Amino acid sequence: MNGAETLLRTLLANGVDVCFANPGTSEMRFVAALDRHRAMRGVLCLFEGVATGAADGYARMSGRPAATLLHLGPGLANGLANLHNARRAHTPVVNVIGDHARSHKELDSPLESDIDAAAATVSSWVRRPVTSADIGPDTAAAVAAALSADVPGPPDPSRTGTSGAVSTLIMAADLSWEESAPPAPRLPALPPRSVTRAEVEATAALVTGPERVALLIDGAGLSEPGLHAAARIRKATGTAAFCPTWPARLRRGAGVPQIVPLGYRAEAVGRQLAGIEHLILVGAREPVASFAYPGRPGMLTPPGTRVHRFVPDAGFDVVDALSALADTVAPGPVPTPPAPDAPPPLVNEPLSTENWAQVIGALLPQEAIVVDESITAGMNTLFPATADSAPHDVLGLTGLAIGQGIPVAAGAALACPERPVVCLQADGSALYTISGLWTQAREKLDVTTVILNNRSYAILRAELDRVGGSAAGPAARALFDLSRPDIDFTSLATGMGVPATRAASTAELAEQFSAALTAPGPHLIEAILQPA
Amino acid sequence: MNGAETLLRTLLANGVDVCFANPGTSEMRFVAALDRHRAMRGVLCLFEGVATGAADGYARMSGRPAATLLHLGPGLANGLANLHNARRAHTPVVNVIGDHARSHKELDSPLESDIDAAAATVSSWVRRPVTSADIGPDTAAAVAAALSADVPGPPDPSRTGTSGAVSTLIMAADLSWEESAPPAPRLPALPPRSVTRAEVEATAALVTGPERVALLIDGAGLSEPGLHAAARIRKATGTAAFCPTWPARLRRGAGVPQIVPLGYRAEAVGRQLAGIEHLILVGAREPVASFAYPGRPGMLTPPGTRVHRFVPDAGFDVVDALSALADTVAPGPVPTPPAPDAPPPLVNEPLSTENWAQVIGALLPQEAIVVDESITAGMNTLFPATADSAPHDVLGLTGLAIGQGIPVAAGAALACPERPVVCLQADGSALYTISGLWTQAREKLDVTTVILNNRSYAILRAELDRVGGSAAGPAARALFDLSRPDIDFTSLATGMGVPATRAASTAELAEQFSAALTAPGPHLIEAILQPA
Repeated sequence: MNGAETLLRTLLANGVDVCFANPGTSEMRFVAALDRHRAMRGVLCLFEGVATGAADGYARMSGRPAATLLHLGPGLANGLANLHNARRAHTPVVNVIGDHARSHKELDSPLESDIDAAAATVSSWVRRPVTSADIGPDTAAAVAAALSADVPGPPDPSRTGTSGAVSTLIMAADLSWEESAPPAPRLPALPPRSVTRAEVEATAALVTGPERVALLIDGAGLSEPGLHAAARIRKATGTAAFCPTWPARLRRGAGVPQIVPLGYRAEAVGRQLAGIEHLILVGAREPVASFAYPGRPGMLTPPGTRVHRFVPDAGFDVVDALSALADTVAPGPVPTPPAPDAPPPLVNEPLSTENWAQVIGALLPQEAIVVDESITAGMNTLFPATADSAPHDVLGLTGLAIGQGIPVAAGAALACPERPVVCLQADGSALYTISGLWTQAREKLDVTTVILNNRSYAILRAELDRVGGSAAGPAARALFDLSRPDIDFTSLATGMGVPATRAASTAELAEQFSAALTAPGPHLIEAILQPA
Repeated sequence: MNGAETLLRTLLANGVDVCFANPGTSEMRFVAALDRHRAMRGVLCLFEGVATGAADGYARMSGRPAATLLHLGPGLANGLANLHNARRAHTPVVNVIGDHARSHKELDSPLESDIDAAAATVSSWVRRPVTSADIGPDTAAAVAAALSADVPGPPDPSRTGTSGAVSTLIMAADLSWEESAPPAPRLPALPPRSVTRAEVEATAALVTGPERVALLIDGAGLSEPGLHAAARIRKATGTAAFCPTWPARLRRGAGVPQIVPLGYRAEAVGRQLAGIEHLILVGAREPVASFAYPGRPGMLTPPGTRVHRFVPDAGFDVVDALSALADTVAPGPVPTPPAPDAPPPLVNEPLSTENWAQVIGALLPQEAIVVDESITAGMNTLFPATADSAPHDVLGLTGLAIGQGIPVAAGAALACPERPVVCLQADGSALYTISGLWTQAREKLDVTTVILNNRSYAILRAELDRVGGSAAGPAARALFDLSRPDIDFTSLATGMGVPATRAASTAELAEQFSAALTAPGPHLIEAILQPA
């Protein structure tokens, strides 16, 4: 058996059986081995950013890491931005990067570059097998490292997928082709830590005390069990509960206790946290502004608020901690959430930033996976409009590196073939990884992409205004303007093999969205948004 | 004046007046300043890999660096692959990367990452201004560093653009908005070194001696003056002359002395260099294989060949060295190259890897800039077919990171608006940076893109066969197959605002190519290649 086969079989032995690939010469033995081990599903992506984003979406939904197969330093480079998002999402991902043969490195041939340095910017674990004997153990260690903050035991899709890390295994071409050792067996991942009874009691004293308290919950705490525990605490004590603006994965919809995402803008967060005397972190980090602005603090906790690290990071079992807290302060049965209000009837009118989300909210199917890269188009409208929709999961833009929507949707659809995937995708960001549509078409994935086309980088127009750019003229504004020429996303989609339509009114969007959900395979709807 | 304006004005004072931009919040002051300094042309790119590739193409043709404007670590990450190619091309590029405010770094906000480490993988110079007083001097130093291996004095488009480097300036947002010092004046770039008279004499002795000698020429040696000098040496002494497989910039066509590119495959190079007793490097590196293969040497110089570093690297004045050698061994007038043969008449037949290049060769307009990312489709056919075409420049894939063609063509067209640009683009690689077509449309650039659509990553199919993958089955082969579904590049182009047609025969390609060259603005022709 050659080294590539040892690697592949060790991945399989460790539960990794999907590989999002954009291979090159140095990965050719791995590719050749795929036909001898059909349990590994190779998925071709036409750009590495699609492969890494798909691996992120796959693991967010399955709780199991996928592998990526990337070609040398430039291949990794093209995948870095979505690995950045995966890192911020605590998603387990196992990158396999083919490198030149060991003897070839010193020749500095055209594709040579510092893979290790680039990989370290997104990975919590980077290793190169040094000899053939290392390949199996190092591959098993890569998977274990990707999962090491995850819950132990078999994967539980309702709770996992948001507490892992990015591992990178760099594999020299000669190690791939040389004779190697047998594959390594499964290596246990590091189990999550638990909070102590004393920490639960101390937190219980806070939330039942006289001062105003809020929970900030992230990770697996945003699964249904976590949200139910938080709802019990809230009902018994009046404690507020928030989550990050764009969490990695959040359960929502009718029957699911709601949680309030922190606003994108620091001012909004300031209003949300005003008067809170204790902010309790539950698998979440202390909230910070995405960007600094002159004279404004970057740390968003109000000056008088004390911060408590009850569940300090993603390496802890967030659901168990929340449940223990709920059992302490609110023993007894779980309250039944009130039945949702019927959504208001849709009025047919031109599509705008204000109304498109109501169409989606009214028609969202049961158990949809909503990939949200709507950015400005959905910032204030999507969550209210979908609060009482059928139960669903939302996957957010954790690292703010745009271009993850289409790939993450592809990966989520591969992980959950029985669930409909709805990708809400801003126009400017869509272009970063547009070839992910082709992978959706080849794999016949049930993804409905809605392009929210406002023909601009709207968020940058707003940022320019914030920095006093009102005096800015046409040269500046041209750099946010996606018209001249207008981009026709229906042409782009059909060019990639994805059927596409265009909607300009709420009625058109409703009709096309329903039709897309009914028909198998991927579809794209270009929603033309009028200026608000 | 704020820091962003100091930076912008220092760039202008140092001769940088084009900025390929994909900005974000942290670059907003630079954007706002564009309207106060209209001498700086801001060009919007919808993906950072387009911005960096365009900067590469711009400088290869103008000899002057362009700036890129990139947003934090993920923005740089998306641009790295084409910066890798620029580094391998010795192209001067000045990256301006906006970073978080200095006080915001420690908060580890969502977009935070290690910009410096990623930048170092492609840059010969990376610096952060520490205080406002540093902005002007550091910006001037960035431009000087990008040009430091270049010829001194005003840019000479016939000789420069292939001996610079990538500089990266990382600019904290607060330095951009704070009051700053005046811009810094132009900083002189380091002049190129010269070879000594003794080195010329020693090399002259070799080329006039009894043993078989070959020159391997790169950099400015592949300009018209360099090639004429090489032709004089060749004619007087019988010395062979080669260039790299895909040089950064090579002058070719009727009246230009020809030079033989080394083959892509090691076996081909072995045949080319067989019997050569002395290989003289003239601004070139010793040839190495792109990839290692079991049991084959990576260094391509035959065992018995002695290597001489006459002009050891791109920091030397290659043209002067070649001219001095020519004057020594072949004094007197420059020989006139023979008139080219008339091209054979075109036969109308289905397009294939064999015949498409003959159409381009027959119709190539005067002073075309040919951006060559045809890879397997043109590997053995493009250079023979264009040897006697009208004089033109060819820009090659120096770093083998695919996806540079469309962006490099955009940058070259901006640098040389009076010259037609012909982009010969493989299908798989085109998708990496397809949104560069939109920038071509917005800027109304005279680029004719010919997509060479063989519906596969053909080079990988060949590589699989080389590694003994003939036993490989459908799972492996699916990873190189770009059909299922077929990609419709005419849809992709029209979706980006570029008029497009499809050609299946040599007559159709000829007609559409001539029409595209005549009409202003960008055009795309999808050439459907039948299997050979």
